Amino acid sequence: MKSRARVGKIFTPHGEIDTPGFVAVGTNGTIKAIDTQMIEKIGLQLMFCNTYHLLLQPGTHVVKKAGGLHKFINRKSPLITDSGGFQIFSLAYGGVNDELKSRGKKKTDGSVLKISEEGVTFRSYRDGSKIELTPESSIEAQKALGADIIIPFDELPPYHIDPKALKESFDRTHRWEICSLKTHLKNPQNQAIYGVVHGGIDKNLRKQSCHTLSQYAFDGYAIGGSVGKNKQELRELIDYTAPLLPSAKPIHLLGIGDLESLLATIPYGVDTFDSSYPTKAARHGQLLTKEGGIKIKQGKYNMDFGPIADDCTCPTCSHYCVAYLHHLFKAHELTGYTLASIHNLHFMVELMRQIRLAIYDDVI
Amino acid sequence: MKSRARVGKIFTPHGEIDTPGFVAVGTNGTIKAIDTQMIEKIGLQLMFCNTYHLLLQPGTHVVKKAGGLHKFINRKSPLITDSGGFQIFSLAYGGVNDELKSRGKKKTDGSVLKISEEGVTFRSYRDGSKIELTPESSIEAQKALGADIIIPFDELPPYHIDPKALKESFDRTHRWEICSLKTHLKNPQNQAIYGVVHGGIDKNLRKQSCHTLSQYAFDGYAIGGSVGKNKQELRELIDYTAPLLPSAKPIHLLGIGDLESLLATIPYGVDTFDSSYPTKAARHGQLLTKEGGIKIKQGKYNMDFGPIADDCTCPTCSHYCVAYLHHLFKAHELTGYTLASIHNLHFMVELMRQIRLAIYDDVI
Repeated sequence: MKSRARVGKIFTPHGEIDTPGFVAVGTNGTIKAIDTQMIEKIGLQLMFCNTYHLLLQPGTHVVKKAGGLHKFINRKSPLITDSGGFQIFSLAYGGVNDELKSRGKKKTDGSVLKISEEGVTFRSYRDGSKIELTPESSIEAQKALGADIIIPFDELPPYHIDPKALKESFDRTHRWEICSLKTHLKNPQNQAIYGVVHGGIDKNLRKQSCHTLSQYAFDGYAIGGSVGKNKQELRELIDYTAPLLPSAKPIHLLGIGDLESLLATIPYGVDTFDSSYPTKAARHGQLLTKEGGIKIKQGKYNMDFGPIADDCTCPTCSHYCVAYLHHLFKAHELTGYTLASIHNLHFMVELMRQIRLAIYDDVI
Repeated sequence: MKSRARVGKIFTPHGEIDTPGFVAVGTNGTIKAIDTQMIEKIGLQLMFCNTYHLLLQPGTHVVKKAGGLHKFINRKSPLITDSGGFQIFSLAYGGVNDELKSRGKKKTDGSVLKISEEGVTFRSYRDGSKIELTPESSIEAQKALGADIIIPFDELPPYHIDPKALKESFDRTHRWEICSLKTHLKNPQNQAIYGVVHGGIDKNLRKQSCHTLSQYAFDGYAIGGSVGKNKQELRELIDYTAPLLPSAKPIHLLGIGDLESLLATIPYGVDTFDSSYPTKAARHGQLLTKEGGIKIKQGKYNMDFGPIADDCTCPTCSHYCVAYLHHLFKAHELTGYTLASIHNLHFMVELMRQIRLAIYDDVI
């Protein structure tokens, strides 16, 4: 096939984002184990924070009082927040993998108390208090946070759901998104808003979602919901969906950031990806390399006095050897998690730069 | 009384140490939650690593193969290692406080298997294997690590011990120290070695210890063993002991580094102090300030958008507000532990600088 991979640039009030670009997840307003100054040094252009978590702690009123999320966490570069919807539902249902393991039995931890036309009532995972989130309140929360890009409130249906319930959820989520957009447009506050394409793995629903959302003034589109249970399903879905969206606007793939998925979907025109995978893997001792990565806790690394990768320019590889990192992990030192996270995040930033060059060169 | 506080400079192959100086503890070759480059940036002049831990993980042969501890952890500035003795015994007996709480019943976890004239046999806390440490093998381990300052192998008697057993331990520990010195002098390797003054809270034994050790070519002296169960006992002990040591050589107080103890003992001529207190306190959310510190997890800090201290120049205070730190701790983010540790360590370095100025000005 002819590649639809593309190189682009997103302009925001806090600077540019080169695409394809990796978006690191800093759920609580920090990328785990790395401070904001180091994130800037690594050159991460877009950081993803979770409204659900920030709503519960410290509370969006605190962040607003601080002058917004950029000031609160002292980040000069662009930020994106989600709506809270995904978190509410994914914490309640578990991920797709949990569901697949449960062989189709719907699983919920009971934290979602009520879903109505107005929104969702759920229990805080922090203190058990009842909280209602609606399209309006989600957008208000994201106005208080003040990220450069925000996401409309949506519902994540479980992967195993009967067609009737899926359609109900599907229609409601689009009403919620449009309501979110209208709330946003009353006070745009120089933020961009991305519509979230739903429909699970049903092509007709995906088409309908693209069609509906394309009629509204969203600044970009995020592909959300269940995107398949394996890479093949993901690839087919993106191949089918991406061309149905306005080509002049950025396409974001929500919650996907492993290398295989990136390389599988960039040729279909996906521009940005968010995932906690590189930093989570780092804390488990999995260091990313072009040769498929290394498991730093393995005994064979105890005498490896070179860097993780000879050509890596990250602050970790510039200063420390593999044997020291191995030792820090064996000794359960927090410093090890930090140094590994720095390397993996830098790896993703650098990989995307190389992917952009490869697209220029028509290699991808 | 006339203050015996003094300002000095210790010269080592890896640079100078201004005294009085705080020595941070990096047990496993890292100060917890801070990487070596940041430690250098903070300006910590001497870092303390534990031979006991490094012997068990990664093994001193690994560090030697890396080119020594400085290279392994990539530190350009001075390092000090202990002999392993203190760790073996303190892990077996617990600290003085544990003992005081146990109301005098001798407590041991059974990890010390045998103490003989030759040395100690103990069980590794990592894998249960039997290990023997002797004056010779402790010094050899410290030669492999290659710190600027090393410590002879000694025994830490429990705080509650009958006089006969104390005297036996006391005599043996001095024989071990002299044996350690002799082993060291066969291959000085440009390292300095400090004798460890023992004798618990018995003034006659302390005097005898100073007298014995002063006859040997130690490059400095460390006051070890039990130094009292409260600040008053500590003060009396140091007041009595310090003048019995050669005045031209540095005096180190082992394992003490809380502010009160520093200020209590510097006037008696103590030059350096090592302690994990500032970094341990940081991880528990206790941030050091001139006004007695703050407990960052307290709710009252959630809207404090200023730095921990207005005049603090540390990397944490330069970039982040109290409310953000409070949030990071409430959200259990590792980044919070790092930022707090950086502040507390910088506080100690800066405090010592101010103490040196105060001594110049005859205020201390």
